[in-house]
Amino acid sequence: MRGSGRPREWDCAVKWLTMDVIALAGSLRSASINAAFCRAAARLAPAGMRIAPYRAGLGSLPLFNPDLEAAPPDTVRQFRDALGKADALIIASPEYAHGMSGVLKNALDWLVSHEAFIGKPVALINTSPRAHHAYEATLEVLRTMSATPVPEASITLPLLGRCTTEEQMVSSGEIAAQIRNALGALQAFLHVGAQDGPSFPIS
Amino acid sequence: MRGSGRPREWDCAVKWLTMDVIALAGSLRSASINAAFCRAAARLAPAGMRIAPYRAGLGSLPLFNPDLEAAPPDTVRQFRDALGKADALIIASPEYAHGMSGVLKNALDWLVSHEAFIGKPVALINTSPRAHHAYEATLEVLRTMSATPVPEASITLPLLGRCTTEEQMVSSGEIAAQIRNALGALQAFLHVGAQDGPSFPIS
Repeated sequence: MRGSGRPREWDCAVKWLTMDVIALAGSLRSASINAAFCRAAARLAPAGMRIAPYRAGLGSLPLFNPDLEAAPPDTVRQFRDALGKADALIIASPEYAHGMSGVLKNALDWLVSHEAFIGKPVALINTSPRAHHAYEATLEVLRTMSATPVPEASITLPLLGRCTTEEQMVSSGEIAAQIRNALGALQAFLHVGAQDGPSFPIS
Repeated sequence: MRGSGRPREWDCAVKWLTMDVIALAGSLRSASINAAFCRAAARLAPAGMRIAPYRAGLGSLPLFNPDLEAAPPDTVRQFRDALGKADALIIASPEYAHGMSGVLKNALDWLVSHEAFIGKPVALINTSPRAHHAYEATLEVLRTMSATPVPEASITLPLLGRCTTEEQMVSSGEIAAQIRNALGALQAFLHVGAQDGPSFPIS
């Protein structure tokens, strides 16, 4: 078997070297800048990092009801499973009336008591330089939920007005470079975390 | 016509004297303390004030989507209409992970661009003395939306642990008195507003 394919240790290494990241957009607007950022980030991901915008979208989730925590609807279980398997998250979300979007907070409410979220590295992206209330509120919530915001990967991008589509973000040298830098910082953080872990398989 | 019934001026006065208030609970939990508070407030309302917990509940609203603002779903239109007709709102909502409940923020997101919310008096009730992040965040959002929080009617109630049901709130002398005081303050605020208005009909 060994002679016919790559050794098992190598499979293991590939598994560790390829980091799976899920990107969440906190707006359901079809032309959302935050959703566009998530798609752009997927295209700008460095080698060894796979970024996928959460396919079902946060709009697939029902409104949070603590009575359903123990036996949540399928969409919630799928969401929790997807996030549990991811090595890290990227969150890009708008500010509405100086607050987090209800869409994002509702999604996070479903994760508050979910153990897979504890210690999860998060890159929090602010796509509007004029906004800060929602960004700070989200950081506070993430810390309270025992997630691990990654400061070096959490950046504010001056996107509004001049760079609002996936194509513009990917093709704009300056913006694309900032996104690549943030993703590189997230990757570096994950590698350090993996090396600090109990069973990093590459010697 | 006049001889057979009350004069039209009197109808007008009754209309002005009876204040309609809608109470919103930010949790969908069936045993929610905040929903219990809304029902208790309805029973403790002073003469001349009618308080109704929002019948459909905030769980009837879809997740906010800016693309649907102009032609929103029926449940959103009914919610906006009900709030537009009310003289004031009461909001009682939990704190989840140091943030507003997504359920409440989602409801407010549907009202951000709705002109009937501008200047709307709001009594914001904090049912958990240990929590303050969500309360302060909600105040910031309400002010940003140009609503009018009423400080004298916005109180923190020590309900957790000892007074969590509608019946307990109504029958507890101390808590019931605090609720009555807050509702009285809201009523006084509304009366002053009515007297300051252009056509208060009682001379």
